[in-house]
Amino acid sequence: MLIGQGFDAHRFADPASARPLWLACLEWDGNGIEGDSDGDVAAHALIDALLSAAHLGDIGTLFGVGKSSAGAGRHGADMLRETVEYLHAHGFAPSSASVALVGNRPKIGPRRTEAESALSQAVGCQVSLTATTTDGMGFTGRGEGIAAIATALVTAVSDVA
Amino acid sequence: MLIGQGFDAHRFADPASARPLWLACLEWDGNGIEGDSDGDVAAHALIDALLSAAHLGDIGTLFGVGKSSAGAGRHGADMLRETVEYLHAHGFAPSSASVALVGNRPKIGPRRTEAESALSQAVGCQVSLTATTTDGMGFTGRGEGIAAIATALVTAVSDVA
Amino acid sequence: MLIGQGFDAHRFADPASARPLWLACLEWDGNGIEGDSDGDVAAHALIDALLSAAHLGDIGTLFGVGKSSAGAGRHGADMLRETVEYLHAHGFAPSSASVALVGNRPKIGPRRTEAESALSQAVGCQVSLTATTTDGMGFTGRGEGIAAIATALVTAVSDVA
Repeated sequence: MLIGQGFDAHRFADPASARPLWLACLEWDGNGIEGDSDGDVAAHALIDALLSAAHLGDIGTLFGVGKSSAGAGRHGADMLRETVEYLHAHGFAPSSASVALVGNRPKIGPRRTEAESALSQAVGCQVSLTATTTDGMGFTGRGEGIAAIATALVTAVSDVA
Repeated sequence: MLIGQGFDAHRFADPASARPLWLACLEWDGNGIEGDSDGDVAAHALIDALLSAAHLGDIGTLFGVGKSSAGAGRHGADMLRETVEYLHAHGFAPSSASVALVGNRPKIGPRRTEAESALSQAVGCQVSLTATTTDGMGFTGRGEGIAAIATALVTAVSDVA
Repeated sequence: MLIGQGFDAHRFADPASARPLWLACLEWDGNGIEGDSDGDVAAHALIDALLSAAHLGDIGTLFGVGKSSAGAGRHGADMLRETVEYLHAHGFAPSSASVALVGNRPKIGPRRTEAESALSQAVGCQVSLTATTTDGMGFTGRGEGIAAIATALVTAVSDVA
């Protein structure tokens, strides 16, 4: 049983950009999050937790960084699936994961089940999602951006290719 | 073995409010923390970690949000006990948990053992507590508020009602 | 199987101080991090996670705090080794750990393998390291300092002295 920790934070985009808001593998109302990919901090923190548990680097190792990276323009679910395939190819399987979102919006509660289903389907194990605010404090409290802290358990599997 | 991540942050109350300071299931000297409940960020982050590990939502799911919520006016230990009963009723039992506090005050060291005992008693498994500051940086460093990051391991038990 | 959470944050030192930069048990280019020890937030967060998992307090319990503390002037690797010896002496052994760094510099990617080797060697189990920025937000984004979130799994061993 191996453990991984992940963290990610991104700015909210300028509302004038009309960028769609993707988070936890779902599209939400409201202006989006900056990023070369879709800015899904929940997915990105989870990718880092999964790769870290398997000792396979982090999201930059697998997808690169910047506008011409392998993650550019891609959705979190798609990147999560590729991450899990990469783990499988190296003899690891996720067994449990959890993401704590920190930010003012969107309101997660009404769509938590849907978001957890999307995350769990992408990862192939139970993924839970919690959400909280910071009472107006710090960059998340001022609404500048959103952060995610993730953790994952991964097991080494015997049927390695 | 399932894993959960939790986070919480709250503002310190106006000293003029003479609000008592509750944290990690104990009362401390100094002015308190804002919140509809007692503002115990250690307990709240831990509740999120426990619920997340069991895939049972988060503190808002179980207790609601706001002045008329089921958590309003309640202490962290009481809310933790209800959380663990909720886990038990759904076939889960906490096996290990840990909370990292981030803030300038109170000084945890002298009462760590007492706080860990109170947390462990409420949860029914070993709960550890660490504490650190941020060298004057950010909202915790400026003394605006206090944050807690928690993680928990939960097992599915066979004797489900 | 016991779990621990750790967090640490320190300011970057005044460049005029010519303080060397130690992080994740390696020396890097660029000005250093403040602290009574070498300021290695990755090692310190990991020490807290390990001690917390074993229910043995935190870095302040083991090394004290301040310029005359047992940690003063010491490197992260050295402090990590003493932490793990302390765990062993109390019947615990680390089995897996992970650290997520949050800060603008140094760039971890090019030396991740080296840093992970140094951390893993000091702890005696696999330790993974991820790194991310906060898009210019908060104290890490403004380059004031650097933070680390760590988690660890520890097992109780039978051959206790």
